[in-house]
Amino acid sequence: MTSHTPAVPNGKDHKFNPDFTAAVINATGPKASPRVRQLTASLIQHLHDFARENELTVDEWMEGVELMNAAGRMSDSKRNEGQLLCDILGLESLVDEITYKLAASAPDHPTATAILGPFYRHNAPLLPNGACIVSPEINAQGDRTWMHGTVTDFVTGKPIEGAVVDVWHTAPNGLYEQQDPEQPEMNLRGRFRTGKEGEYGFYCLRPVPYPIPYDGPAGKVLKALDRHPYRPAHIHFLLSAPGYKPIVTQIFDRQSKYIDDDAVFAVKDSLIVDFVPYQGDPKADFELPYDFKMASFDDAKKHAVVAGGTGGTTEESAAAV
Amino acid sequence: MTSHTPAVPNGKDHKFNPDFTAAVINATGPKASPRVRQLTASLIQHLHDFARENELTVDEWMEGVELMNAAGRMSDSKRNEGQLLCDILGLESLVDEITYKLAASAPDHPTATAILGPFYRHNAPLLPNGACIVSPEINAQGDRTWMHGTVTDFVTGKPIEGAVVDVWHTAPNGLYEQQDPEQPEMNLRGRFRTGKEGEYGFYCLRPVPYPIPYDGPAGKVLKALDRHPYRPAHIHFLLSAPGYKPIVTQIFDRQSKYIDDDAVFAVKDSLIVDFVPYQGDPKADFELPYDFKMASFDDAKKHAVVAGGTGGTTEESAAAV
Repeated sequence: MTSHTPAVPNGKDHKFNPDFTAAVINATGPKASPRVRQLTASLIQHLHDFARENELTVDEWMEGVELMNAAGRMSDSKRNEGQLLCDILGLESLVDEITYKLAASAPDHPTATAILGPFYRHNAPLLPNGACIVSPEINAQGDRTWMHGTVTDFVTGKPIEGAVVDVWHTAPNGLYEQQDPEQPEMNLRGRFRTGKEGEYGFYCLRPVPYPIPYDGPAGKVLKALDRHPYRPAHIHFLLSAPGYKPIVTQIFDRQSKYIDDDAVFAVKDSLIVDFVPYQGDPKADFELPYDFKMASFDDAKKHAVVAGGTGGTTEESAAAV
Repeated sequence: MTSHTPAVPNGKDHKFNPDFTAAVINATGPKASPRVRQLTASLIQHLHDFARENELTVDEWMEGVELMNAAGRMSDSKRNEGQLLCDILGLESLVDEITYKLAASAPDHPTATAILGPFYRHNAPLLPNGACIVSPEINAQGDRTWMHGTVTDFVTGKPIEGAVVDVWHTAPNGLYEQQDPEQPEMNLRGRFRTGKEGEYGFYCLRPVPYPIPYDGPAGKVLKALDRHPYRPAHIHFLLSAPGYKPIVTQIFDRQSKYIDDDAVFAVKDSLIVDFVPYQGDPKADFELPYDFKMASFDDAKKHAVVAGGTGGTTEESAAAV
């Protein structure tokens, strides 16, 4: 056995080979990067502790392997089942909290983030402020909503001109357009560029709760856990602006069913919003005022917005999902 | 949030939402089986602790998801890349130890087990004792070996008649027959039925070290860890007999390179054997005497051979790999 790192003590009493986990960890060679070495050692320790603490059997482990293989086979450019498995175990939401921990702790903090989810698409139509993302080709049901607000710098409070607000949400049937052959391409998606005062505004629908796809391994796990697959009504955003850390977020309708019981644990108090009945605009039944605050890369660095070692989500990496 | 189970204390100091992990664990509904509830709660706790302790970023998590999805896409009836990923992290070997813990602790113990590996095939040819598993169609290189011994009951010491010794190993080029179009179907595989005295015997080759497949995610991980992909020379066995717990095992050549450094951590001292130079048999260069001991289902139950809740490896489940 190669032994380039000191043995990691297990720290748990158990009846199995006490040297095994350290031997596996110490097999890592001298050229592994420090971060890879750290993550792998920790992962091995947790995996082995999990197996020992629960006296995991070969059959049970094999069921887990088959579940993960099935998730991989189901994943393609339109669906990421491995991500969905993590989501229902709260992992994406937690990693999101870790990466953007400043968002929760700074005194005047940028908009809290939430998971990107598997339904983001690149290159949604770039539309002028005041436009409607509900496709004119379909006679949409649902409540029309006028959403508007500003994008500002969370430190200086100054408006950010030219920020891009990328928005997407489901149709009243609970499906995103790429899941639904009845919806036109890019229905309920759009990108809006803020004006001089950081302002943006568009018409959309008041969203509805919907189930995450439950015809695969994630659905199998939910069923075994006696859990429902529903997410509370929400609207997704990806915000970007030159010089600012991109924000991936969702806002949630306070009135929605499942607001306290999201299947993927993404709801944060600061992201819950109120849809206000709206008078005097024939194009909208509700108004949704919402202001975003972004952290510049400099401030993000200063306040350690990004946890961990390799840098947080960039627009490219977020968009790769 | 539904709350059917008591909150699980985290027990760790950290700067993240202290209630999050308990909320995810407590989402499990009342109809989940006790074992599923236990395994999932423990898995969630370990996953979340792993993420927090290492301040795992969104980018790093996403790399992990993509790795697992790629493993699933690569897996089929001939290759199990998810299993291979577990193997290089020592998980299959550990789960094997757990499942058959009696094998390591009973005073007179049945043959220690080792991982099945992904190259088992059903229905290897049933051959008479004394036959050769090296296909006559190929002019094999390698050292011919006469392997023989007995299969006995580990409690009574009595011979087991009619036990099936299912054997498989690689060719001198390091490939199993299903990986290698040059080898005839079922080359270097065979099943032998023990006689009245529990005896078996066959001709095979002295095996060689070989790399596990490293053209997929497991190879990527090994490379990042600065580790080699080699396994020490070994022969695989699956033993079965009516009324006895099946045994999945491997024996390892003491002289082999990598004997102290198996890429999948399957070597146990009790499984290391000596190939003895053999005189007087023109068909063999080496002799390999080896006796197997099996535990009856009754004894296995009595001595709690099977750890955990759902029963250990059955012949069917082992063969499903």
